[in-house]
Amino acid sequence: MTALAEHQDLYALSPEGQRLLFTEARTALKFTDEPVGDEQLQAIWELFKWAPTGSNLNPLRILYVRTDEGKKRLVPLLTPPNQPKSESAPVIAVLAVDREYGEYGAELCPSIPGLKDVLDSNPVLRDASGDFNAALQAGYFVLAVRAAGLAAGPMKGFDAEAVNAEFFPDGRWKSILLVNIGQPAEDAWGERMPRLDYEQAVQLV
Amino acid sequence: MTALAEHQDLYALSPEGQRLLFTEARTALKFTDEPVGDEQLQAIWELFKWAPTGSNLNPLRILYVRTDEGKKRLVPLLTPPNQPKSESAPVIAVLAVDREYGEYGAELCPSIPGLKDVLDSNPVLRDASGDFNAALQAGYFVLAVRAAGLAAGPMKGFDAEAVNAEFFPDGRWKSILLVNIGQPAEDAWGERMPRLDYEQAVQLV
Repeated sequence: MTALAEHQDLYALSPEGQRLLFTEARTALKFTDEPVGDEQLQAIWELFKWAPTGSNLNPLRILYVRTDEGKKRLVPLLTPPNQPKSESAPVIAVLAVDREYGEYGAELCPSIPGLKDVLDSNPVLRDASGDFNAALQAGYFVLAVRAAGLAAGPMKGFDAEAVNAEFFPDGRWKSILLVNIGQPAEDAWGERMPRLDYEQAVQLV
Repeated sequence: MTALAEHQDLYALSPEGQRLLFTEARTALKFTDEPVGDEQLQAIWELFKWAPTGSNLNPLRILYVRTDEGKKRLVPLLTPPNQPKSESAPVIAVLAVDREYGEYGAELCPSIPGLKDVLDSNPVLRDASGDFNAALQAGYFVLAVRAAGLAAGPMKGFDAEAVNAEFFPDGRWKSILLVNIGQPAEDAWGERMPRLDYEQAVQLV
């Protein structure tokens, strides 16, 4: 924590909330066997869903892998260093972009009639926009998991094409990120890595 | 708010925090002229920077456009409907991906020696990973702005190539999203748009 961050008058979020979501939250690498219930998964959704997306099109989809059968199908498709992490997680979220997200255009963005046709007329833009907004939503998702009192372990190390073939054989959902979810084990944490300085990443004009 | 979300025992984040970041937060379309100071911009950073990225590579960069001169250069590059929004905002964040984010690999991820060389040997993977992680971080950024007590107005409607040419002529930073930031005006809000139902977006196995 820097001296600046201790100036609580600069924040609307409480110190507890800052620690929970940002400053003391960590990527969990190992979990206890305490299960994650349906209501907890829905609680994540009830926060996550409100964060903004382009034209409100919300292209992110979630497959929760929670059964032993599901985990047996998923875990071998991860890189070897990631397998024990997901093995220990009570639930793994497979975050995916819905390639046909425009189908919900009339429902989600009634102020732009014909949005689905506009998207379908420009597949390159449609796909790029879906990928971008789904990744944006993946960021919201990680913080919503933490808001629900659970530890998140996001991972890119998996065979995305194999996961798509195994779980999304109709080709509509395309996996973008896995997130292990649960209560962190005592030895859940790696060493905290540094961050860039403000001056390295921020400019003003 | 659903009945479920009122079950506060499902959340670690306080009800005030839930409202601030998720359930009652809205995309501001108009701002008061109350300025946003340097310390507020740094306060956003002090939360934002801790949220996780792949191999901790943190590819997102921020250009804050706050002066009249800067706004005169930026606003004409927005789509016409977006121009008055940014015109009224005391500061506009131009979020960008650093195409050479691997340069900080040794500093940010010392546990993987030679990460920069690995990335440079596979430019397609390097660029896709940079784009994905920067978009993920853009999601964290929107919520960190809200945590700092400011309203955020993210916008994709701008000429990205023109913004790059105007502000990032050396080609290293590539703009991905604009975020208007400030105190919301009284009439800052559009109509709240619906969201997908849980069952439309979530599956379990």
